[in-house]
Amino acid sequence: MYVNQQIILDNRPTGEASLSNFKFIETKTPELQDGHVLVQHHFLSLDPYMRGRMNDSKSYTQPQALGQVMIGGTVGEVVESKHPNFTIGDKVVGMGGWQLYNVFDANIVGALQKVDTTHIEISHFLGAVGMPGVTAWYGLVKIIQAKAGQTVTVSAASGAVGSAFGALAKARGLRVVGFAGGKDKCDYVVKELGFDACIDYKEHEDYVSLSKAIQEVCPNGIDGHFENVGGMVLDAVMLRTNAFARFAVCGMIAGYNGNPIPMKNPALILMNRMMVEGFIVSEHLDIWPEALQELGALVASKKLNPRQTIAHGLEQAPEAFLGLLKGKNFGKQLVKLI
Amino acid sequence: MYVNQQIILDNRPTGEASLSNFKFIETKTPELQDGHVLVQHHFLSLDPYMRGRMNDSKSYTQPQALGQVMIGGTVGEVVESKHPNFTIGDKVVGMGGWQLYNVFDANIVGALQKVDTTHIEISHFLGAVGMPGVTAWYGLVKIIQAKAGQTVTVSAASGAVGSAFGALAKARGLRVVGFAGGKDKCDYVVKELGFDACIDYKEHEDYVSLSKAIQEVCPNGIDGHFENVGGMVLDAVMLRTNAFARFAVCGMIAGYNGNPIPMKNPALILMNRMMVEGFIVSEHLDIWPEALQELGALVASKKLNPRQTIAHGLEQAPEAFLGLLKGKNFGKQLVKLI
Repeated sequence: MYVNQQIILDNRPTGEASLSNFKFIETKTPELQDGHVLVQHHFLSLDPYMRGRMNDSKSYTQPQALGQVMIGGTVGEVVESKHPNFTIGDKVVGMGGWQLYNVFDANIVGALQKVDTTHIEISHFLGAVGMPGVTAWYGLVKIIQAKAGQTVTVSAASGAVGSAFGALAKARGLRVVGFAGGKDKCDYVVKELGFDACIDYKEHEDYVSLSKAIQEVCPNGIDGHFENVGGMVLDAVMLRTNAFARFAVCGMIAGYNGNPIPMKNPALILMNRMMVEGFIVSEHLDIWPEALQELGALVASKKLNPRQTIAHGLEQAPEAFLGLLKGKNFGKQLVKLI
Repeated sequence: MYVNQQIILDNRPTGEASLSNFKFIETKTPELQDGHVLVQHHFLSLDPYMRGRMNDSKSYTQPQALGQVMIGGTVGEVVESKHPNFTIGDKVVGMGGWQLYNVFDANIVGALQKVDTTHIEISHFLGAVGMPGVTAWYGLVKIIQAKAGQTVTVSAASGAVGSAFGALAKARGLRVVGFAGGKDKCDYVVKELGFDACIDYKEHEDYVSLSKAIQEVCPNGIDGHFENVGGMVLDAVMLRTNAFARFAVCGMIAGYNGNPIPMKNPALILMNRMMVEGFIVSEHLDIWPEALQELGALVASKKLNPRQTIAHGLEQAPEAFLGLLKGKNFGKQLVKLI
């Protein structure tokens, strides 16, 4: 039995999320039942999707229950096991939530995955070698399907998904151009992540201006695009697409008041015979092993060395999360718990 | 040598197209060169795409040249031939333009196609058993790919593409719901074309209201949609899509001043994991034989008996065309030339 610290959703935000929506509590870990595994978390992943879950609205996912531990991806180490497949000391990844320990029912397929940390730091299993990396892989390989020499673009290029997208694109001989906010992030995208170019969208007042900047760094047009954000970048990219361009849509922001942000010129879908597809990577579990193998090799060989922003201690999680929603993080946002 | 009547594009429209953009002239048919075939046109097809060609703007197609015969699909009969594959009396379809006769270079693959009018009226080769029919077939079969029992929708349901779409959908065991403007067209779509339901979009002031009407006739949501128009219908349909809905985009209007009409809520592409694809059927020639075979069988068996609006005489073509642009036609707009 261990003392467990947890952060629960105490109440739902009205408008912006705030620290007062969360509550820090202490409990004790329960006695293990057969088939269950107790994991001590090393890192918690913080991700934008969590904000959506805090609302009580119907979306493609269930809302986070009030009074329950906030959901979230975690990596850690098995400290007790009543399941034959898991041994004390195993490194594992799962949806352990905002807490120091979690009990997993290891009989649920996929609930807990062992990871090999010989050549890869354990934290990367929440980023490049985890859901964000596989998200980038699915969008690039299964939806965009670009051929060597073609040009692909990605919004939020300095983030966990964008950085993996860049490495996967370069490994396929593609020209890859990113979008990020601010000079520091753009420099990082080009110099450290190896993108061919990165455009600071904050330097542009509207999508027409942004579209001209795209033309300069994509002289042959755009064959594929990975959308993490929506809005101005999407509109600008659409103006520069080649015939038969393919777009993977993984993220779409809403306006400040929650109203949708329109797509300015959907007729381009017809004029350029585009294909635009939205996806959620958790609905495509069949491709995870192949994707993780490639992503693991890229990280182990340092061809992909994504930046992380690490908060220390569970009590810092809410503030780090609110910062993430405002774009204060640089690369993958994690909380170190041990 | 025959006296030929032609309508040429005399000048480009500024704003709305008008009769003064066209000029009626008389010429004589030339002597045939080897490999060429002279065709006397029975019917000319009038289609909305022609309006786009009248502008001098770069699109996915070349503009119509000034001083040249207006382009357009035609069916007719061979009256002279210097090509071994064509004999006087053959019924043929091709892009003969707004004129009584045309000389085709029959060595160009696909320029002139023989058609069998034993069981099908010749005019249908410009409609249900021609480009509009194949357009519906490609969108339904290759893009939407709905399964029996699913619900599909189509805008401009009473038109040449929409009517073929309905028959093809019913042949596949789908529930098919159309959109059309006005009670007469909606009645025709349900009673004569056999759609399960048709919504008069003119009865709705905005897409939210239209979307509620969709819910009533699509209680299980929408699995696939064929878009001929864009704007309010598209926005309303998107609100009623099921997960993994697939949209074929074949037509997208612009606003009155030529500015694009936005897509109100593109985030639905992600939320519903939609696939939206634009296409032009002339870029998919490989599927034409299979599509035409099915469409021909539907028309020959009267399972598809699409309405036609027929103007009489070449000199009526400009006025009929302007009426088409204002939705005055009912079903496929043709000009009878013989």
